[in-house]
Amino acid sequence: MNKTYFQNLFQPKLDNPVLVEGLPGFGNVGKITAQLLIKLTKAKLFTELYSPSLPDYVIVNTKGICHPPRYEFYASSTGKPNFIILTGDAQPSLNDIVAHYKLCGEILDFAEECGSKFIITIGGVPMPHPAGEVYVAATSKKLAVETMEKGAALYGGGKIMGATGLLLGIAKSRGWKGTCLLGATTGLKADRKAALSVFKFLTKMLGIDQKQNVKVRGRESVKSKP
Amino acid sequence: MNKTYFQNLFQPKLDNPVLVEGLPGFGNVGKITAQLLIKLTKAKLFTELYSPSLPDYVIVNTKGICHPPRYEFYASSTGKPNFIILTGDAQPSLNDIVAHYKLCGEILDFAEECGSKFIITIGGVPMPHPAGEVYVAATSKKLAVETMEKGAALYGGGKIMGATGLLLGIAKSRGWKGTCLLGATTGLKADRKAALSVFKFLTKMLGIDQKQNVKVRGRESVKSKP
Amino acid sequence: MNKTYFQNLFQPKLDNPVLVEGLPGFGNVGKITAQLLIKLTKAKLFTELYSPSLPDYVIVNTKGICHPPRYEFYASSTGKPNFIILTGDAQPSLNDIVAHYKLCGEILDFAEECGSKFIITIGGVPMPHPAGEVYVAATSKKLAVETMEKGAALYGGGKIMGATGLLLGIAKSRGWKGTCLLGATTGLKADRKAALSVFKFLTKMLGIDQKQNVKVRGRESVKSKP
Amino acid sequence: MNKTYFQNLFQPKLDNPVLVEGLPGFGNVGKITAQLLIKLTKAKLFTELYSPSLPDYVIVNTKGICHPPRYEFYASSTGKPNFIILTGDAQPSLNDIVAHYKLCGEILDFAEECGSKFIITIGGVPMPHPAGEVYVAATSKKLAVETMEKGAALYGGGKIMGATGLLLGIAKSRGWKGTCLLGATTGLKADRKAALSVFKFLTKMLGIDQKQNVKVRGRESVKSKP
Repeated sequence: MNKTYFQNLFQPKLDNPVLVEGLPGFGNVGKITAQLLIKLTKAKLFTELYSPSLPDYVIVNTKGICHPPRYEFYASSTGKPNFIILTGDAQPSLNDIVAHYKLCGEILDFAEECGSKFIITIGGVPMPHPAGEVYVAATSKKLAVETMEKGAALYGGGKIMGATGLLLGIAKSRGWKGTCLLGATTGLKADRKAALSVFKFLTKMLGIDQKQNVKVRGRESVKSKP
Repeated sequence: MNKTYFQNLFQPKLDNPVLVEGLPGFGNVGKITAQLLIKLTKAKLFTELYSPSLPDYVIVNTKGICHPPRYEFYASSTGKPNFIILTGDAQPSLNDIVAHYKLCGEILDFAEECGSKFIITIGGVPMPHPAGEVYVAATSKKLAVETMEKGAALYGGGKIMGATGLLLGIAKSRGWKGTCLLGATTGLKADRKAALSVFKFLTKMLGIDQKQNVKVRGRESVKSKP
Repeated sequence: MNKTYFQNLFQPKLDNPVLVEGLPGFGNVGKITAQLLIKLTKAKLFTELYSPSLPDYVIVNTKGICHPPRYEFYASSTGKPNFIILTGDAQPSLNDIVAHYKLCGEILDFAEECGSKFIITIGGVPMPHPAGEVYVAATSKKLAVETMEKGAALYGGGKIMGATGLLLGIAKSRGWKGTCLLGATTGLKADRKAALSVFKFLTKMLGIDQKQNVKVRGRESVKSKP
Repeated sequence: MNKTYFQNLFQPKLDNPVLVEGLPGFGNVGKITAQLLIKLTKAKLFTELYSPSLPDYVIVNTKGICHPPRYEFYASSTGKPNFIILTGDAQPSLNDIVAHYKLCGEILDFAEECGSKFIITIGGVPMPHPAGEVYVAATSKKLAVETMEKGAALYGGGKIMGATGLLLGIAKSRGWKGTCLLGATTGLKADRKAALSVFKFLTKMLGIDQKQNVKVRGRESVKSKP
């Protein structure tokens, strides 16, 4: 296995989807938020990504079934906006940064083919006494200000580690627009509370009516070719 | 030396061989089990693998003779099933995961050319108070359940590190079937007891009659071209 | 993103520019000195470099705007000598030395295309009790002696880590001439005092009249094509 | 700088030269021994090797002159046998094993072009109470036994780290013959005593008369094309 490959499960119809990234990290804020968004938007797993940049172990689920670490892409085309939600088992090793850059480029290539030009990356930011704060960094001042007007705090003068930072940065250098939302967390364990704060902010920011979505469940109709 | 190379010693006749991996790792459970299986099945060393993914030292044997770290492939075609048994001196460095993925892919390529489509990987799983338990993870629920019915415990909801995990995972993503057996071990030193537990389970699981095998020693006839 | 790319903002007219490197490092002496020199020589940012050899995070500025870590090239063609000043956000990871060599080669290729054949690299050297000393190492004995005659101490019999050392070394092996200036610093925090010592020495060494430069501010005329 | 390059200073006439490796390592035994052998055999520096596998700093000598870390090849064609003596500033980083394998292959390619098919690698082996012992490992039992008959102790059942091990191992896999001599050392600092033990053993083993060599100094005539 020499390179990243995308295993396509079905081909969703997507209209200018927003790429939302929520991978494992501090307090698992990104991954939990992504899972909540997948549930809310009834997004379907449409592509799996395997890569030699991901760790060299296998994941075993609770039934004893294994798979190599992978990224998963979920598509939601029922509401506005459409989404590609990226989550997964693990982030690349710290030892191969060149490979990580390459992987992030491949993900953006893939999302561009699906019509994406806007990214929201989600992570945690370690704080000694977190209290539900959501911080924002963005590809432009305009976007940062707009997000702050909706209640986020400024994440100014720092770094954003891993895929949550790198995807946003490479996306920017390709002309994408995007925002990073960081939930304050002690980071010591999976922090569902921090993820819920980010999730609430995210749905408000995107104008997704959580109730309405629940109501329309019966009428859900994802057009997909298996 | 830029890439992996396979040094072929002879060409065994193999019929749908099961690939069994037992490399150094926790408690050396995998490697010791592989050595026991080689002895039982009178498997012969038929191919050595050298690779720049393996560590950059040489191994010196008790007579002072050196060789670079290598993987060794043993073939057994005397019983049912046939086996390719993979063991070796060392696992790849933690620093080059991309190279490890590549190496595992090359091993599976090689085994496929020999007719393999089923893999059993063997390792140790660290436990504070091991008591001879054998854990199983598999490429499918059916295989996991079948192995548990023979007495293995479920290894659910974790990771399997190194080649023992990665080979199984990549094999699965290529459409192979396979099982991983993990012996409970403190992992602090070579744990022959844990390996014996796994070995007994393995021979029972595969229906290899240990006595019969000992009897047929005189009739052994490995067809090979040197 | 597979390789280094140079994002050109404008094309300065440069006459045999001296390449001055001041990247983050011990006490941030190199970076602070580079910033002072940029200010003094009214150098303009003309090229940004992005590379998978740089760390896999994003930098967020005080306004919440992100960019991937980058190197920046500033050009000054108003005085004598002309300068290309290289500074940036971060140095490459310790884990990919091959990539670091490659990156330094690419930087020298770029500077050669701009007409450079002389390099001054600037860094800090950790000392328990720094007192404003500036140390010198060079590509030749003649250059080392000349710099010592101007007041620098000999940096003899050691190593110079990171880009500050590697750029000088690779430049030498390409036939460039060059000097490394190291400011004594405890290295524990950004050491503006050490940087000022290096900066004063550098301007004296290059015969840049700081006052005159300030005076000519009104007559500044950088010819550039945006 | 993307790959290893050999800077040739002159082309020595060599007849089946023995490649002797003595690089920095435990107690610097290898490097010091190589330096003693260079002196004894009046070997001349004929090639420098630069490589992105070597560390990313520069070496500064006592006069303040820098160069990137390099390997140096010295040739001696005055006595029997002829020698290529490999020494240098540093060993490759632990982080890039694939690159280290490649580098060792390139060194053997180079030595083969010079007519070498026999290698002696020299290093230190850490011991709590070293007493001048010299240990041997070899590419064959015959060579190990012959060396033990001359007084070396068996280095059996271990590993030999770094270039000292890897060069010997890769050489063997190419069909070379060779020996590794390891001087017992605490390894804490440059251990001239341990190196002297190895050096005495080496000259005895090779039948180099130290006195005679000293006498012939006046008649020395290295044929070389600059």
